[in-house]
Amino acid sequence: MNDRQTPSPRTHLALQQPARAWFETLQGRICAAFEAIEDMATFAGGEPGRFVASPWRRPHEAGEDGGGGEMRVMRGRVFEKVGVNVSTVWGEFSADFAAQIPGAAADRRFWASGISLVAHMRSPRVPAVHMNTRLIVTTEGWFAGGADITPAYPESEAAQADAAAFHARLRAACDSFDPSYYPRFKDWCDRYFYLPHRGEARGLGGIFYDHLRSGDADADFAFTRAVGEAFLAAYPEIVRQRMHESWTKAEREHLLVRRGRYVEFNLLYDRGTLFGLKTGGNIEAILMSLPPEVRWP
Amino acid sequence: MNDRQTPSPRTHLALQQPARAWFETLQGRICAAFEAIEDMATFAGGEPGRFVASPWRRPHEAGEDGGGGEMRVMRGRVFEKVGVNVSTVWGEFSADFAAQIPGAAADRRFWASGISLVAHMRSPRVPAVHMNTRLIVTTEGWFAGGADITPAYPESEAAQADAAAFHARLRAACDSFDPSYYPRFKDWCDRYFYLPHRGEARGLGGIFYDHLRSGDADADFAFTRAVGEAFLAAYPEIVRQRMHESWTKAEREHLLVRRGRYVEFNLLYDRGTLFGLKTGGNIEAILMSLPPEVRWP
Repeated sequence: MNDRQTPSPRTHLALQQPARAWFETLQGRICAAFEAIEDMATFAGGEPGRFVASPWRRPHEAGEDGGGGEMRVMRGRVFEKVGVNVSTVWGEFSADFAAQIPGAAADRRFWASGISLVAHMRSPRVPAVHMNTRLIVTTEGWFAGGADITPAYPESEAAQADAAAFHARLRAACDSFDPSYYPRFKDWCDRYFYLPHRGEARGLGGIFYDHLRSGDADADFAFTRAVGEAFLAAYPEIVRQRMHESWTKAEREHLLVRRGRYVEFNLLYDRGTLFGLKTGGNIEAILMSLPPEVRWP
Repeated sequence: MNDRQTPSPRTHLALQQPARAWFETLQGRICAAFEAIEDMATFAGGEPGRFVASPWRRPHEAGEDGGGGEMRVMRGRVFEKVGVNVSTVWGEFSADFAAQIPGAAADRRFWASGISLVAHMRSPRVPAVHMNTRLIVTTEGWFAGGADITPAYPESEAAQADAAAFHARLRAACDSFDPSYYPRFKDWCDRYFYLPHRGEARGLGGIFYDHLRSGDADADFAFTRAVGEAFLAAYPEIVRQRMHESWTKAEREHLLVRRGRYVEFNLLYDRGTLFGLKTGGNIEAILMSLPPEVRWP
């Protein structure tokens, strides 16, 4: 279901609080789904993981309130390290940065709210995953986000099947809004999550969209909610299916080496990471994406 | 000893083959010194490590010869992972890149030769180390390089003593050429190996110099040799002194976390790494600097 049938004149400004509320609700639902998986994984031994919440405040440039967020991190028996973070921040971009942001050249004030998730799994048979969606408001407003999957053995039949299921959910979410979305956003994802220095894709993709302003802000918000719902329908199911498979020490070692590529991508190319680090974001929240254990043998 | 007393009219062009020969000789001497340490470390169990050499060729832009190099990598019982690489490459910079390089704006041809070393040690009591020196020739010519040390516990008395010994050797090398070198190159090192997103130094520094052209190319070459000799006098001695100390599991864990900062620096800020990756250098040689095992817990 989506809101396309009932176009409304709501502006991005009017959507700020509903969007923020959605991101926070989605955070809670995802954390609950992941904790339920931890409870299920009795085969794994040890205690089921639980999310630990860390709220943080962002000082505004002038010492005023600049918003903040809440990191939730779980180190579990299935989820080796997963961060599900929401933040809602506002202030003024630096002049340098404002020049690169739509609608911020003349008036540098911004407001941004979003959810961001990265999960690194103990099992080399369960793909890592990334999802984030956000609303940005300058003198313009737009939604952005995406979700993508990173298996340790992208060529394997199992990984291909998981990716097909993941893509199918995202495609259905896209198609219910605009038939051009999935092909465009899938290509964008493939181009974005690419390591030119290795000539390698980071994983098996998904969708990626930025600066989405179709002219109907409500529809764009509904699409962003649909992406969150698609993620929630797709990923936990993959985890539940794959987590019971046993794996070898060599497979785990391979996973740790593949994670090195993930680090290389995030630190060399990821715009969100570089933006956050270079503009004084919350370091712990930004670097939550880095895997718990990595090898460059 | 240095060549300052016998200034000569040799140009950087005339120094290309002597510099290349020096870097290759130094590579051999360093590898021999490190293998001797491996032989000494009978307390560690397992076989002493040995360097494995991998020569590589760099294709020139037009398919012609573009030079190449030799990586030497050892995975030992004291040296967990150490790369000692030499390369001598030539060709033409891209237009974008040439604009940033002294003497390359009008004529984009370049020649570069150097040695580059990074050692990550098994023991959290033995500091990691980095050293590199090089000669670059465009329509200008200059030497560049440096050496710096990264202990797991920079605040500890032991690490402070090691750093003092390391700095003393580098300072002596500097002072025999120019009393301004050490203070300038030490500061440059401190500014360079700094992680602004964490407000942290990478380690306990050393020296860093770039675009050194004093007007006497022979003296600059002699200084670059003196930096290599200082490294060879300083670092193996530190390793021999510290490698016998036992350490705890918690110290090793701390080392793995500190190595994450090393990765963050190299992938986010290191100009050599970014330059190499973005201009089609040898990926394996460039990323040899990344630690074998890392944690972001």
